[in-house]
Amino acid sequence: MAPPRPELSTESLVAGVLSGDRAILGRAITLLESTHPSHRCQAQEVLLALMPHTGNAQRVGVSGVPGVGKSTFIEAFGRHLIECGHRVAVLTIDPSSTVTGGSVLGDKTRMAKLSQDARAFIRPSPSGGTLGGVASRTREVMLACEAAGFDVVLVESVGVGQSEATLADLVDFFLLLMLPSAGDELQGIKRGILEVVDMVAVNKADGALLTAAQRARQDYDTALHILRGHDTPPVKLISAATGHGIPELWTSIDGIFSKRAERREIESRRRGQAQKWMWALIDERLLSHFRSHPEVVATRNAVEDALNNRALTPQIAAEKLLTVYGLDVLG
Amino acid sequence: MAPPRPELSTESLVAGVLSGDRAILGRAITLLESTHPSHRCQAQEVLLALMPHTGNAQRVGVSGVPGVGKSTFIEAFGRHLIECGHRVAVLTIDPSSTVTGGSVLGDKTRMAKLSQDARAFIRPSPSGGTLGGVASRTREVMLACEAAGFDVVLVESVGVGQSEATLADLVDFFLLLMLPSAGDELQGIKRGILEVVDMVAVNKADGALLTAAQRARQDYDTALHILRGHDTPPVKLISAATGHGIPELWTSIDGIFSKRAERREIESRRRGQAQKWMWALIDERLLSHFRSHPEVVATRNAVEDALNNRALTPQIAAEKLLTVYGLDVLG
Repeated sequence: MAPPRPELSTESLVAGVLSGDRAILGRAITLLESTHPSHRCQAQEVLLALMPHTGNAQRVGVSGVPGVGKSTFIEAFGRHLIECGHRVAVLTIDPSSTVTGGSVLGDKTRMAKLSQDARAFIRPSPSGGTLGGVASRTREVMLACEAAGFDVVLVESVGVGQSEATLADLVDFFLLLMLPSAGDELQGIKRGILEVVDMVAVNKADGALLTAAQRARQDYDTALHILRGHDTPPVKLISAATGHGIPELWTSIDGIFSKRAERREIESRRRGQAQKWMWALIDERLLSHFRSHPEVVATRNAVEDALNNRALTPQIAAEKLLTVYGLDVLG
Repeated sequence: MAPPRPELSTESLVAGVLSGDRAILGRAITLLESTHPSHRCQAQEVLLALMPHTGNAQRVGVSGVPGVGKSTFIEAFGRHLIECGHRVAVLTIDPSSTVTGGSVLGDKTRMAKLSQDARAFIRPSPSGGTLGGVASRTREVMLACEAAGFDVVLVESVGVGQSEATLADLVDFFLLLMLPSAGDELQGIKRGILEVVDMVAVNKADGALLTAAQRARQDYDTALHILRGHDTPPVKLISAATGHGIPELWTSIDGIFSKRAERREIESRRRGQAQKWMWALIDERLLSHFRSHPEVVATRNAVEDALNNRALTPQIAAEKLLTVYGLDVLG
């Protein structure tokens, strides 16, 4: 292992990030992602100093089932954004990942050209933990990237589990990539995702799959119309591999973003998201404190067994655990 | 107001419920629904004594948008169940309702014949509060009805807000009633409901609406197939007004129930539900204790304002409130 680098002061980290220094941004992010108690305090100091310089990016979430071509899409989409003069940060929410050389190499390999461009910044997901914890750190990393001058942040979710629902609480705009095979795919989309999607892009609309993609586009459009009525999100055809439809996709997203920004919808959505995050963090902390309380740990299995055997009601079971935790039940 | 009735002992209440005495069942339910602290203890004693006698009913949830004809359906469906030899309890989840004479009369009026039958028991929703609280009490009422010998429990949700998602956590089988007008309706169905539905019944499939209902059935079937794939729930045509399709609907539900019971799926689903309820009650209690803590009350507005003005991050805001609450943040 390499010897540990000397730690930077809060001032150096803040100044470095604000000047757009990529190496220092990377170190600030490492600090933000650290779960080590001794790092948490400085991390929050850094973030607090960066806060006034955040909020200037378009935050776009990208999701889709595994195999839909998210990496190829982000590579093509990110390069187009750079050609348009943007600076692009790419983040990932993946509670199952671990920070290893492999993971970093993996991300850089799958977005080969984008990762070599100084106008792009690709950061893999922080290491495991609860989805809430991972997403909360991703949120802070997004803010640091904004403070460093990146004006489009792409946040990719792995497309499994509850990560999409969480993604919708991080971003301004939710893009769902779909395969050109409608019949079997919508069922893989998780609960409620179709209600928060802002746009659908049918990927791989090229060559032999073009006809299937056109048909899929119609099917998705029908399904979304039934589900969402007059609020139906647009369904576009793209090919990340050939680049077909990518510029039009961005024009369309950018146009929707501008309209929403004019109506101050972006601002109010972000405020709502921040409140929701705060309460989710509080709730997570209250429950984890509860679950790790020695008396709760000692009692929990017996209570759950009794509940399974109908020797207790959920109410009485809850009250038993709350009592050993020290909360008066009716207070 | 009538003078208060003398209170019954726990033993009398339990014995009365187990003997199927409707008047005593009603009083036991009033006790279960009471939010008065002095009643909570006896209520849980009663319920605990009833627990071994619960679990013998088929628990069917019935939902649908307002206007779909839920009352007419439950009247027709309940009467058919009685003709088949069942004893039927009808409960409602409605966090917006208040227990008033009007509400009781309302329920008895809208199910006129069913409410006069000794083999049926209709109970309106307990009074307001959080959805979790209301649903938790409805769950306990359901158990009391089972102990009193009712072998089918119909739980109706009002079809707005989050009550359907909660309903799915109460019952064995979720029946969604739909109108014969597909185009505008699926969008009114709340997030995720279509993923937990076990069967859809298109109501009002009679007279001039029959053709529309047949078309709607196909549209729902298509949408559900796209969403659920090989797990597509059946879509039936019924008319609660004429009784058309009601016997076939029950045969079909009963058949699915039997298959699931054989595979012990009912049992494992109920265990999962009980665990989920227990943790939801604990979580609700932890959060309500937090929110009502004097220091949190005194600090909350300032913290939320600072969050809105980006003077705080959600993490720091959460930590500030957790600190005044007395939880060491990193403990």
